[in-house]
Amino acid sequence: MAAGPVHERLAALELVDHHCHGAVTTGLDRAGFESLLTEGEAWPGVSPFDSPVGVAVRRHCAPLLDLPRHVPPDVYLGRRAELGTAEVNRRFLRAAGTGVFCVDTGYAPHRVTAPAELAEAAGGVAYEVVRLEGVAEAVAAGGVEPDAYAAAFRAAAWEAVRRPGVVGVKSVAAYRTGFGLDPVRPSSAEVTEAARRWLARGGRLDDPVLVRHLLWTAVDLGRPLQLHTGFGDGDIRMHRVDPTLLTDWLHLTASTIPVLLLHCWPYQRQAAYLSAVFERVYLDVGLTLHHVGPARAGAILAEALEITPFRKLLYSSDAYGVAEFHHLGALAFRQGLAGLLWERVEADELALPDALRIARWLGRDNARRVYRLPGGLVDDG
Amino acid sequence: MAAGPVHERLAALELVDHHCHGAVTTGLDRAGFESLLTEGEAWPGVSPFDSPVGVAVRRHCAPLLDLPRHVPPDVYLGRRAELGTAEVNRRFLRAAGTGVFCVDTGYAPHRVTAPAELAEAAGGVAYEVVRLEGVAEAVAAGGVEPDAYAAAFRAAAWEAVRRPGVVGVKSVAAYRTGFGLDPVRPSSAEVTEAARRWLARGGRLDDPVLVRHLLWTAVDLGRPLQLHTGFGDGDIRMHRVDPTLLTDWLHLTASTIPVLLLHCWPYQRQAAYLSAVFERVYLDVGLTLHHVGPARAGAILAEALEITPFRKLLYSSDAYGVAEFHHLGALAFRQGLAGLLWERVEADELALPDALRIARWLGRDNARRVYRLPGGLVDDG
Amino acid sequence: MAAGPVHERLAALELVDHHCHGAVTTGLDRAGFESLLTEGEAWPGVSPFDSPVGVAVRRHCAPLLDLPRHVPPDVYLGRRAELGTAEVNRRFLRAAGTGVFCVDTGYAPHRVTAPAELAEAAGGVAYEVVRLEGVAEAVAAGGVEPDAYAAAFRAAAWEAVRRPGVVGVKSVAAYRTGFGLDPVRPSSAEVTEAARRWLARGGRLDDPVLVRHLLWTAVDLGRPLQLHTGFGDGDIRMHRVDPTLLTDWLHLTASTIPVLLLHCWPYQRQAAYLSAVFERVYLDVGLTLHHVGPARAGAILAEALEITPFRKLLYSSDAYGVAEFHHLGALAFRQGLAGLLWERVEADELALPDALRIARWLGRDNARRVYRLPGGLVDDG
Repeated sequence: MAAGPVHERLAALELVDHHCHGAVTTGLDRAGFESLLTEGEAWPGVSPFDSPVGVAVRRHCAPLLDLPRHVPPDVYLGRRAELGTAEVNRRFLRAAGTGVFCVDTGYAPHRVTAPAELAEAAGGVAYEVVRLEGVAEAVAAGGVEPDAYAAAFRAAAWEAVRRPGVVGVKSVAAYRTGFGLDPVRPSSAEVTEAARRWLARGGRLDDPVLVRHLLWTAVDLGRPLQLHTGFGDGDIRMHRVDPTLLTDWLHLTASTIPVLLLHCWPYQRQAAYLSAVFERVYLDVGLTLHHVGPARAGAILAEALEITPFRKLLYSSDAYGVAEFHHLGALAFRQGLAGLLWERVEADELALPDALRIARWLGRDNARRVYRLPGGLVDDG
Repeated sequence: MAAGPVHERLAALELVDHHCHGAVTTGLDRAGFESLLTEGEAWPGVSPFDSPVGVAVRRHCAPLLDLPRHVPPDVYLGRRAELGTAEVNRRFLRAAGTGVFCVDTGYAPHRVTAPAELAEAAGGVAYEVVRLEGVAEAVAAGGVEPDAYAAAFRAAAWEAVRRPGVVGVKSVAAYRTGFGLDPVRPSSAEVTEAARRWLARGGRLDDPVLVRHLLWTAVDLGRPLQLHTGFGDGDIRMHRVDPTLLTDWLHLTASTIPVLLLHCWPYQRQAAYLSAVFERVYLDVGLTLHHVGPARAGAILAEALEITPFRKLLYSSDAYGVAEFHHLGALAFRQGLAGLLWERVEADELALPDALRIARWLGRDNARRVYRLPGGLVDDG
Repeated sequence: MAAGPVHERLAALELVDHHCHGAVTTGLDRAGFESLLTEGEAWPGVSPFDSPVGVAVRRHCAPLLDLPRHVPPDVYLGRRAELGTAEVNRRFLRAAGTGVFCVDTGYAPHRVTAPAELAEAAGGVAYEVVRLEGVAEAVAAGGVEPDAYAAAFRAAAWEAVRRPGVVGVKSVAAYRTGFGLDPVRPSSAEVTEAARRWLARGGRLDDPVLVRHLLWTAVDLGRPLQLHTGFGDGDIRMHRVDPTLLTDWLHLTASTIPVLLLHCWPYQRQAAYLSAVFERVYLDVGLTLHHVGPARAGAILAEALEITPFRKLLYSSDAYGVAEFHHLGALAFRQGLAGLLWERVEADELALPDALRIARWLGRDNARRVYRLPGGLVDDG
């Protein structure tokens, strides 16, 4: 990392990663590792290492496995296997320099670290974020009558958020219906009717009425709500997950809860607009940061910050599966943000104390405030 | 401002600000000033100074109040109050180096300078741009039968544009319906029926038929038509104000009038496309320039100019309320454009005389041509 | 071109231009030349030379006509006329350094070079890409009953792709309906009914059912399918040609054929996303590269490559009409890509051998693989 006090401050800052997942705890062969490197799939004849994130792993993760920069994938994976998953996870999670993880526990097709395991390996603290679709689907799986669905889901959601360590909820409405929803809270009769159809049909929660109901239930819960927007795997319809499609709903909810727009790319400017005009809308560019790597993270952050109030951008890695991503996300965030801020300090567009304060806010303090984490209400300004 | 002949030329160029508003003439306390700094609102615990535009004000406006760069907000506002609004306005408006202001007089929730006052304080000249929604709403407020609405609106619009000093009209259709309108001119019967509904209901003009009718009336007036697109306050639905949604309407109007796409961000590339394929479509990145500040204005301008013919981009500040914005908009435009052009001259991608000509066209001459301002038909090429 | 091994490698690399058109073979007066410079039209009082592409032509093409850089348009066009079209075409096509051209022969409002002529002038090899709308329209023009249309179109398409030298097909569905189509393959009855309407009405193929049928016929042909997306002339509705509107169709076709998203700007990030999550989706930023010129090509490529697997981006010029564009496209690609890669090598974000490999893949090898061109199955890694 280049010299300069902003780089130093960010390098030393214990980040709050306000949205991430666990790391796989079992050994990974090349196919297994590669399938976790990409939001697509591992295709015949095309290695996911041949991508920006693959290059970034070879460059920035190899040294933590005692290897030279830019080693070939096979050498990298050989050493990874040699060290063993526990040691590899420990090295990357420590290197991430993340003090607090808010872990979305609702997505885990693999065996991954529980929040406490993740925190222990990292030497930090973990909180939990409850995925509401999972709660609803568990209610359905447990057996419920259509006219009891709303109350049962509400009760289960309340129970989930009252568990110790839970700091917020998340919705993947983006994956289920996109955001082109009727913004109005559905009536009880509509919910019952929709539940009747869904419970009869089964499968994941993707009924538009029930997705709306889920979002409005989140409003009632009063907790910070994370919303996947923009970039994700092939199951997304990108044109339906532009966060500005949520504008009418945001007007109706009237900033009663914090809404955290996750990922956002390629709609980071649209998300920034929402954060500038709605009191309790926030954004991050998680997932994107490690996929584009440090070489491009600064450019994404610069777009995300064009009009964004400095209280409104948070750090997240959205790392899932390989602990490399917990490290890379933090690294790309630190380097990208430090480069951007330092360039402005050097051009005298920004005073150094302001740059240092913005770095702290984005990397740590904004998340503390939104999620009411320890240290969050004392502002070190 | 960095050295170089393009910077010098732009620093010395008397700009035409083809779209702006007045500056508040009364004193502003901290809450009042902060509410004008943001397109959102002033939220508890989050100062609008903690944003890119706030940083830019402290950096670039403080020296004009005899303060050091980057002073704290309270010091800034204390000095501002001490000098008094008239002196503050005079300083910023003079510093803007703007020779001509085209003032949208249709938005003034505060007591602001009339065009002549603005011009006098700036040592320049002011023209007026008539907001057509205001004309229509005045017609309604004055009492009119539904079947007389179209003729009355037309007559009032003609009367408004024939007033001395009026150089164009503006529509805020973006705020009322967005651009996903039927592009066809509505029939008389449709207009009467829509007017019947609207006049019975009252309120602002947001009926889709009447908004279409307003846009087609603008075509009949034959004057340059300014259209808000993209960035604005929380009343916008961003996904409905992508200017390319206007394409069918632009085909139907067949370039009979100049259409000026205002603001555009984050759709500056989409606006640039329209300017490249429609003979009389123009764009600016006003409002955006001061909100992103000089640190980022060059990046926005670079996107706006990727394919834009050099006759098609104009300067505007879209400043409203605080005269800081009339200054900051001009400064961000000058620095951003000079940096971009000079970089290309230094790389020998652009000849210096071409760079100087492009600077003059964008900063002054394109607006003179479009609005037929004095000096506008003599091309200093 | 700046020094550095990546620049040298790219300067020496024989490109595969996987999507271009012919060059006009007749003399061009100023009006004729200018009309080919722009995706708009040549408007009174606004020279297309006063645009980024005009600046790039004067800068980068003049020296190939033995003129100084940045010469005035009249001098440029005088010298062009003096040399004659054949010599001018030969100079630019040789200078392009393109070894292979995949020529879309379905668009030629002017008399242009046939693929073999283009290849001969360039000292390279040409293949053909069949525009499917042209095939369908020829079937209609030849006379066919509605219930025989589907079979006749299919037979004609098969015949066209079996001609020697044909390596793929193309659709301009973007121009006809945009991508907001029902993704499902239409039934025979639907096709017959749509054909009945279209054949009775005549004109170009723009019936949504028949456009869907054309796309599904392309799937059956099993050849690489080029799809115009994003930037083009004034006939595009930009908001309907965002390539992510194709997502449902891409899921249904399940990567049975390579799909090549052409142009893409301003949706290069959206296209990149599709290339990252669909096994056989590829993209280029052709057309855009010469319109923005070398001064901006690197910025566009940087966005296009943010998350794109390195096997998924191809080079194309999309040059049509003036051979300047075959040259400028190649030049902008080489300089833009070299600058981007070299910057990362210098920052130690990318190893030099990887940079050189990525340069070869994007400039040549990816196209060889997708179109199964000679040399394409041997990977020089």
